[in-house]
Amino acid sequence: LPPKDCFVAEAQITVRYAETDAMGIVHHMQYVVYFEVGRTEYSHQRGKPYSEFEETGRYLTVTEISVQYRQPARYDQHLRILTWIESLKSRGLTFAYEIRDVETDQLIANGWTKHICVDHDGKVIRIPEEWRAWAN
Amino acid sequence: LPPKDCFVAEAQITVRYAETDAMGIVHHMQYVVYFEVGRTEYSHQRGKPYSEFEETGRYLTVTEISVQYRQPARYDQHLRILTWIESLKSRGLTFAYEIRDVETDQLIANGWTKHICVDHDGKVIRIPEEWRAWAN
Amino acid sequence: LPPKDCFVAEAQITVRYAETDAMGIVHHMQYVVYFEVGRTEYSHQRGKPYSEFEETGRYLTVTEISVQYRQPARYDQHLRILTWIESLKSRGLTFAYEIRDVETDQLIANGWTKHICVDHDGKVIRIPEEWRAWAN
Amino acid sequence: LPPKDCFVAEAQITVRYAETDAMGIVHHMQYVVYFEVGRTEYSHQRGKPYSEFEETGRYLTVTEISVQYRQPARYDQHLRILTWIESLKSRGLTFAYEIRDVETDQLIANGWTKHICVDHDGKVIRIPEEWRAWAN
Repeated sequence: LPPKDCFVAEAQITVRYAETDAMGIVHHMQYVVYFEVGRTEYSHQRGKPYSEFEETGRYLTVTEISVQYRQPARYDQHLRILTWIESLKSRGLTFAYEIRDVETDQLIANGWTKHICVDHDGKVIRIPEEWRAWAN
Repeated sequence: LPPKDCFVAEAQITVRYAETDAMGIVHHMQYVVYFEVGRTEYSHQRGKPYSEFEETGRYLTVTEISVQYRQPARYDQHLRILTWIESLKSRGLTFAYEIRDVETDQLIANGWTKHICVDHDGKVIRIPEEWRAWAN
Repeated sequence: LPPKDCFVAEAQITVRYAETDAMGIVHHMQYVVYFEVGRTEYSHQRGKPYSEFEETGRYLTVTEISVQYRQPARYDQHLRILTWIESLKSRGLTFAYEIRDVETDQLIANGWTKHICVDHDGKVIRIPEEWRAWAN
Repeated sequence: LPPKDCFVAEAQITVRYAETDAMGIVHHMQYVVYFEVGRTEYSHQRGKPYSEFEETGRYLTVTEISVQYRQPARYDQHLRILTWIESLKSRGLTFAYEIRDVETDQLIANGWTKHICVDHDGKVIRIPEEWRAWAN
């Protein structure tokens, strides 16, 4: 569960048929994409779309991910993605996630992703001050 | 443009980062998935979710697709998918689609998909009467 | 079938689990990716990798695709992708494809993709002479 | 690095254009698919294709994944995927992976995936004895 005092963004998605696999459930790689959808929504709700961040020539590149699978999800299932910032440093940050069924609130998957800030040449740089407000 | 007198379903999606490619735009295969999202929405708006259709042991398998690309789309762009039934026969049907930018209404891509109705063993069967109402 | 007198490149792939869907077969969007794998192989076999083409600041962007689905393919199935150039003009070209089972030679899918040559700003340009040799 | 005394399977792949994203590099979700390609190859090299395992009505479902990203990979880059079993229990196992550039041997990504054995209804079961030979 996200800590009580931090900003949590909620995105909602409906499972696409293309996201299922021959087991009849959502393929496990798909949750990595759902986490990314959660980050995009987080950035919008904080008033700082990630697309604008990239336009400044900076990227939050992914250095590590961890996903725990709790329950399978299926085609057309309605899911919500909770996203928050778990920790923030000068050059990087960690997002955490929970994916839950909209109707039952059952936990489907959870995890985190670590990011560092790089410029267009891949050099590690500080996250600009105005973007660090994301995490307050 | 969809014909005046037919039911047109509208779905909306926001382009995911994972859907872009190294040209900086949405990868062309992705529109095949967007069309599928359009069909799911169509089935919901007609009160007959495709997931329930499959639960009856029938599938609308894809036999042919055609996509025309008009303008590139980019990460975080807001798109609407218009979906309608272009023709309906006893054992198959053709869906048509337009994908447009939500803000500017610019046409991004259009196309159609042909489907036949099969049972779990892949045998071609008639579309059940109660499902053909989809197309009226 | 490809015309007798034209260069045909063959690529081979093994279906990945992630490429299947809840029907237990390869998702239909995946063939668009297989076609692309065929184009990459074609460019290698002609001695002109597409990656080098992009390094010159040009792109063969996709303007239209058509896929016909003949037989389903399944996880771990071994497929070959035949790729050839169907027509070539000064500013664009059409690739054609057949996907067949390696063991039985059964036709799984076939289709074509149309491309135009654009520069980094999306402006339509002529395909440079040295790259047109692709099609002879 | 894989431990000295364990069986390590090697698969090779070439990065597809569809696997890249707007940063110009392989999208981070893709490594989850590459790991899966590694598992398929591992099962083949041990003489026990995973497709046959599923035909017995059993699945090795993924319960947890971890990926560490070391260097970006690009379109058309030739990669090798090293896969081995890190631990084996009666009802589950852990695969470990390294993805390296074929030419330079540079480490691109590494990680692990945890699996449990389930039947078609999702009930956790023992891995059958004849399949446990995978890990010796």
